[in-house]
Amino acid sequence: MRYLITFSYDGSNYSGYQKQIDQVTIQDTIEQVLTKVNANKPVLIYASGRTDAHVHALGQRAHFDMTVAITPFRLKKSLNSLLPNDIYIRSVEEVSQTFHARYDVKLKEYMYIINIGEYNPMERNYVYQYNKTLDIEKMKEAISFFIGTYNFKSFTKSDDERMDYTRKIVQASIDVDSNNANHVIMSFLGTGFLRYMVRNMVGTLIEVGEGKRNSSDISVILASENRTSAGKTAPPEGLYLKNVFY
Amino acid sequence: MRYLITFSYDGSNYSGYQKQIDQVTIQDTIEQVLTKVNANKPVLIYASGRTDAHVHALGQRAHFDMTVAITPFRLKKSLNSLLPNDIYIRSVEEVSQTFHARYDVKLKEYMYIINIGEYNPMERNYVYQYNKTLDIEKMKEAISFFIGTYNFKSFTKSDDERMDYTRKIVQASIDVDSNNANHVIMSFLGTGFLRYMVRNMVGTLIEVGEGKRNSSDISVILASENRTSAGKTAPPEGLYLKNVFY
Repeated sequence: MRYLITFSYDGSNYSGYQKQIDQVTIQDTIEQVLTKVNANKPVLIYASGRTDAHVHALGQRAHFDMTVAITPFRLKKSLNSLLPNDIYIRSVEEVSQTFHARYDVKLKEYMYIINIGEYNPMERNYVYQYNKTLDIEKMKEAISFFIGTYNFKSFTKSDDERMDYTRKIVQASIDVDSNNANHVIMSFLGTGFLRYMVRNMVGTLIEVGEGKRNSSDISVILASENRTSAGKTAPPEGLYLKNVFY
Repeated sequence: MRYLITFSYDGSNYSGYQKQIDQVTIQDTIEQVLTKVNANKPVLIYASGRTDAHVHALGQRAHFDMTVAITPFRLKKSLNSLLPNDIYIRSVEEVSQTFHARYDVKLKEYMYIINIGEYNPMERNYVYQYNKTLDIEKMKEAISFFIGTYNFKSFTKSDDERMDYTRKIVQASIDVDSNNANHVIMSFLGTGFLRYMVRNMVGTLIEVGEGKRNSSDISVILASENRTSAGKTAPPEGLYLKNVFY
């Protein structure tokens, strides 16, 4: 039986989502628990994509196959009772044998939160503590230049020449939290995102908000297809994988 | 010179505010740093009051005397550069030699946050993960019975017969966060609070929200002057010392 899980996690104490030798990751933590539930027959999970160290997820999704027969309801209960309290299985559904959590992705949504007010120790792992003001109106102008289908090579780390850097951003917006004027929330909805792409877009938008770049520079940076044209990589703790759509 | 500091802290990794042998506490962490700044002459700090293990502060206040001459501006900078990132000095002011951060308190404000929606791993140390619905309207009725001057013996742990359990609650309210319908925020403003008093009031209000008690039971519990009449102690992670007024 193939299952699709939707899950949230606090990435603070993990070396990212993806399995790595001698590191504690989200993937191997979930796989170990699933293997236990599967009568110790190894279970491998396939997520919509990786998230980097200290990045969080509200709605990450993954599929896997189990040999033991178990209802989605019982599987959700078992997993949440065995997982550490910084990973939570929000839902379990049965899916067809042809479903693939990575290849079938239609859209992904990321959120990035910046604190432009005073340093808040409670938020240090969950909101980028920028702690200075930013010109939000200029950033709103700038973010709109990301909407569309572009080559995003300037906004990724990789320099693999064979790779296709084209991605489509469907929606991108910046809002001040209506309940906390110190929180600036950026949202990006797109067909897919390259490695560090959201954090590099955010880092560049911050430089617009600081007055170091103009809004229209975004188009020039995209056209350059060169990582050195864009701004710094924003830190991981403000980033959330919010939704994955199939 | 006597200084008054206003500070915030994430209580997650501390055995509470107050110094204890063989425990890491907020007080000794700050005192160690202040002693360094004071050319290694020991500095003792006097806070508005203690907070328990895992309880947070947004606006705790404390006074201390220094022998080394340093401006409030430089002292704030030095302290924040030396303190761990879960304690933050929000302001430093010079005060008169007669000022006392505990004895001069006029009012204190506490806030308690409950998540009545789905479990959120990012909030596990900062919001009580109750994760079930509550009858907020009944709780709003109930909380108003705390406003006034009462003997709060039913809501504290202590059974020291010599103690005065009378406290005055000036304001008490419950609101759903306008930006997150899962967050129920309770606020209490009063002349002082006994040990566990806020958490015991919150625990009792939750039992009202669950339908196990009536709103008017609050008056009966207060009148009983007996801890066993009140509800359970709510967990520490949802509690914040928000403000101290002089």
